[in-house]
Amino acid sequence: MPTYRAPVDEVLFLLRDVFQWERYANVPGFSDLNAEMLEAVLRQAARLCEDVLQPLNQTGDREGCRRLADGAIATPNGFREAYRAYAEGGWIGLAADQRYGGQGLPYTIAAVMNEFSASANMAFSMYPGLTITALSALLHHGTEAQKAFYGPKMTAGRWSGTMNLTEPHCGTDLGLLRTKAAPLAGGAYAISGQKIFISAGEHDLAENIVHLVLARIEGAPAGTKGLSLFIVPKFVHEDPDLAGRRNAVSCGSIENKMGIHGNSTCVMNFDGAIGFLLGEPNRGLPAMFVMMNEARLGVAVQGLAQSEVAYQNAAAYARTRLQMRALTGAKFPDQPADPLIVQPDVRRNLLEIRAFNEAARALVLWTALRCDVARRVDFDQKARQEAEDHLGLMTPLMKGFLTDRGFDNAVKAQQLFGGHGYIRENGMEQFVRDARIAMIYEGANAVQAIDLVGRKLPMHGGRAIIAFFGEVGAFIAQNELTEAMRPYVAPLREGLGHLQQATMWFMNHAMTKPDNAGAGSYAYMHLFGLVGLGFMWAQIARASLASRARGAVAREAMEARLMTGRFFMERMLPETQFQLTRIMAGGDALMAMPAEYF
Amino acid sequence: MPTYRAPVDEVLFLLRDVFQWERYANVPGFSDLNAEMLEAVLRQAARLCEDVLQPLNQTGDREGCRRLADGAIATPNGFREAYRAYAEGGWIGLAADQRYGGQGLPYTIAAVMNEFSASANMAFSMYPGLTITALSALLHHGTEAQKAFYGPKMTAGRWSGTMNLTEPHCGTDLGLLRTKAAPLAGGAYAISGQKIFISAGEHDLAENIVHLVLARIEGAPAGTKGLSLFIVPKFVHEDPDLAGRRNAVSCGSIENKMGIHGNSTCVMNFDGAIGFLLGEPNRGLPAMFVMMNEARLGVAVQGLAQSEVAYQNAAAYARTRLQMRALTGAKFPDQPADPLIVQPDVRRNLLEIRAFNEAARALVLWTALRCDVARRVDFDQKARQEAEDHLGLMTPLMKGFLTDRGFDNAVKAQQLFGGHGYIRENGMEQFVRDARIAMIYEGANAVQAIDLVGRKLPMHGGRAIIAFFGEVGAFIAQNELTEAMRPYVAPLREGLGHLQQATMWFMNHAMTKPDNAGAGSYAYMHLFGLVGLGFMWAQIARASLASRARGAVAREAMEARLMTGRFFMERMLPETQFQLTRIMAGGDALMAMPAEYF
Repeated sequence: MPTYRAPVDEVLFLLRDVFQWERYANVPGFSDLNAEMLEAVLRQAARLCEDVLQPLNQTGDREGCRRLADGAIATPNGFREAYRAYAEGGWIGLAADQRYGGQGLPYTIAAVMNEFSASANMAFSMYPGLTITALSALLHHGTEAQKAFYGPKMTAGRWSGTMNLTEPHCGTDLGLLRTKAAPLAGGAYAISGQKIFISAGEHDLAENIVHLVLARIEGAPAGTKGLSLFIVPKFVHEDPDLAGRRNAVSCGSIENKMGIHGNSTCVMNFDGAIGFLLGEPNRGLPAMFVMMNEARLGVAVQGLAQSEVAYQNAAAYARTRLQMRALTGAKFPDQPADPLIVQPDVRRNLLEIRAFNEAARALVLWTALRCDVARRVDFDQKARQEAEDHLGLMTPLMKGFLTDRGFDNAVKAQQLFGGHGYIRENGMEQFVRDARIAMIYEGANAVQAIDLVGRKLPMHGGRAIIAFFGEVGAFIAQNELTEAMRPYVAPLREGLGHLQQATMWFMNHAMTKPDNAGAGSYAYMHLFGLVGLGFMWAQIARASLASRARGAVAREAMEARLMTGRFFMERMLPETQFQLTRIMAGGDALMAMPAEYF
Repeated sequence: MPTYRAPVDEVLFLLRDVFQWERYANVPGFSDLNAEMLEAVLRQAARLCEDVLQPLNQTGDREGCRRLADGAIATPNGFREAYRAYAEGGWIGLAADQRYGGQGLPYTIAAVMNEFSASANMAFSMYPGLTITALSALLHHGTEAQKAFYGPKMTAGRWSGTMNLTEPHCGTDLGLLRTKAAPLAGGAYAISGQKIFISAGEHDLAENIVHLVLARIEGAPAGTKGLSLFIVPKFVHEDPDLAGRRNAVSCGSIENKMGIHGNSTCVMNFDGAIGFLLGEPNRGLPAMFVMMNEARLGVAVQGLAQSEVAYQNAAAYARTRLQMRALTGAKFPDQPADPLIVQPDVRRNLLEIRAFNEAARALVLWTALRCDVARRVDFDQKARQEAEDHLGLMTPLMKGFLTDRGFDNAVKAQQLFGGHGYIRENGMEQFVRDARIAMIYEGANAVQAIDLVGRKLPMHGGRAIIAFFGEVGAFIAQNELTEAMRPYVAPLREGLGHLQQATMWFMNHAMTKPDNAGAGSYAYMHLFGLVGLGFMWAQIARASLASRARGAVAREAMEARLMTGRFFMERMLPETQFQLTRIMAGGDALMAMPAEYF
């Protein structure tokens, strides 16, 4: 049976020592959380995830969701109570505006809760997760009346939310979508069409479900410029005349999937369902992107989350499973065999996962802090714009890179268990199956890569990437003369050089030949991700050295971080050279092959 | 619904054009298969796999195996008929000695059938696969009476076979095993103990099951030197007095696994079961290794097989799924969108899989041909010894490398389907789940890596790896001045250089410090695997160029090979540099971390 301990101390170290939490005190929401309060909130989050959500992870996978004869969905045993506990703890409205039922705390704390809850029970965490993103879109684009109407119900967990984008013939290519909206008297619309892959589309956790649906108003332009966003409630309370009438939206079937069995993935049928416009007509796609971007960061965190819980269980197994002897002779001659952890390759495997986890968490928190600045700081337009640039650049990068590597790490952790890792009851293969979806949904990772290279890099004349280069370069300049920092700074400089070369190569070769951008986009996403982790490791190392110099109590943890960071620099970051080679190979060879040869 | 076409033309090209089949005419078994016969046999294999096995792949996964109240196992619908067809086609005894019911054909053909059948239905293919390997051990170590007794029954498919090694507390570390053998009057033994993860341990496909069981005779030494191998039949026909009595061996339960649901993975209980010694007492482990090595090559082929079938389905999807437009503008403006195949990153994904598949198949056939030489050539001791060296070196390499990459490729192919790849009915996620086990069983891949580096490299003063270097070096020298070969030879030379540097590094740093070998073993396995594929691509390119020069009919296939080979050289082989860097980082950093820090 797998276990999970939320890495609270690790988060506290990153927020306090690496990112200097106190520097954000004047950002709205932060002042309520001093260092002690911060820790108290995180420990509360950890308790809910460890004690309530995690015990339902395997049972939820085994039971899955059942569609009943009337189209209702029964979630696994215990999910209803867990959802109630989650909502009552205030976690749904954690970062939402206090005027609409939220707690107004930093988004950064919500990102931490994302990690903990997705580690504990990824399938479950998607129910509140989708409610949070739908709420975010409603509070961003809704009228004052809409915000006041939906906010308190959703933050209280009475009503949940969904996103309805995909149709059978279109996922990535939303311009093709066919769901129609016909105007009704009184300003509402009749929504008709079919949506697929709708996570949490139907369930028994809440009184009502608020579907946000992308559809085309009759007569609107073809393509993405004719899409509008609608609120389609399961029960219609918006119009007093309808008095909670069941809307014509229903779950036609649920998908039989590889993983996340505890979450209901629905085919949703809209048969003239009553819908209410959210935001402006034909501006549905940009409105949906508010949700999409937040959801993408949430999915990035799922990659880290599965990697973390898989690591914890693999490390525990490696410390206790007795098998074979150390290569240098028996370490524990009194026992029938040595623990796996004496094997260098077992350590290599574990360190690869761990060196990702700690730096990926730093990347998440760094970006989450910028997200808070981008959304809440109105007293410093420059800081806000820089934060927005950063978010635009990091969102596709983190979605693609963290979920790819998170999945790989779940596979590596499973591998340490040998045959026992393939058996369902040991839980390691569930991490692999669950982690797999994160590479696919909210935009498959290849779409993230082309968004990164084709849109986010060149945007505003490359302002965001130039700022990133500047920030990393300044860090290197500040620290390169410090002897103890050299093992971290020198490899980072080399990795950064590769990223800069790759970026220049695109400037010179992809503007005129977009296939060169496409051909190198995936490699660039991984090259950039590695440099991002390297930058985080260098900062973690600096904070750890400072903490050690201060004689901090958690000396072992600091030593472990310094060693893990060295491992990353020596054995993982050098991959940047290989990714650069791939990028500079260009697209000609790829495009030359006739389609029928494939 | 996934489809599968066995790559017969690809195999024929490799056997005839690349490896020059006719050169083997004087190896026993080959003379019966001239070029036409060879093709006829392969087409027959393809038909069985495409028409009989593949249609049962998804249904077998869905139904799984059921354990009935009496401990019997019901395999999925259709498996019984398929097993009969497989046996009646002569495929079980294909390469077995004709004196004992076999057909005496080359093992190379059996390796091809391994690929086709594992692509079509991996879970099914394990039933005949285990029978074939058990038969091989029986014919290798059995007395004349044992060979005559078991051979015809097993080749006819009436009796099947298993391997019983793993116990709950020991998988890799067989020296720990506890299953006991107590001598009985008359020369037989009473076998007692429990084995786990026994593939095809119980089923309804054959009249009888011949378990080969590793156990310790009472009073035998501890560790691996006290292990003996026993034949434990489900029904005892060996002793006329017992007249087919049900033996005290039974399936206690079956495992609920991530994949290969169509195969029964059993906990086997031996409660004083009658067993007969196979080979010499206390020499069970070396005897078992005859099976293990053959089984490891079979598992290596499973990695390729899942990669191949996943590729075929992904390529078909990419050619037909309409979504988005080409980066350079609409390619098919009359259609609502362009097919996925116009996207450079989709091509990158597909070519990475394909560039592996074609060269991995070459590696399999090259090694299979050497296997035939090693086993059958008694007129040339030098050729035989070289072939044996080659096999020893390539077995762990191919098991580890081909299954790691085969799994990665199944994941990549699934990714092209977006959300549809996560849905069970589309079949892509089954390839991932099934491919996953190949990295684990028959020795987890980390065990293969340390076997390669720690045992096979230094064996006989490095004779095998020196021969490999010599062979690749000679090929480079022969071809480096040919203009058309330069894009293949130059990168191969560079990759070979990295492999040689890594090998030298181990010689200088691992003899005295074994942890340096352990720390670099996994990277070395991948570095070596890449160079192996590179060597195959260079040979494929040479044969394709020659074929094109001759004006061969299959011009498109030759062009596609030359392009795919270029892709491999430009974008995949350069990974060798990164793997070399990892190796040369050594083991100190890994070993320094105290176990409790993990």
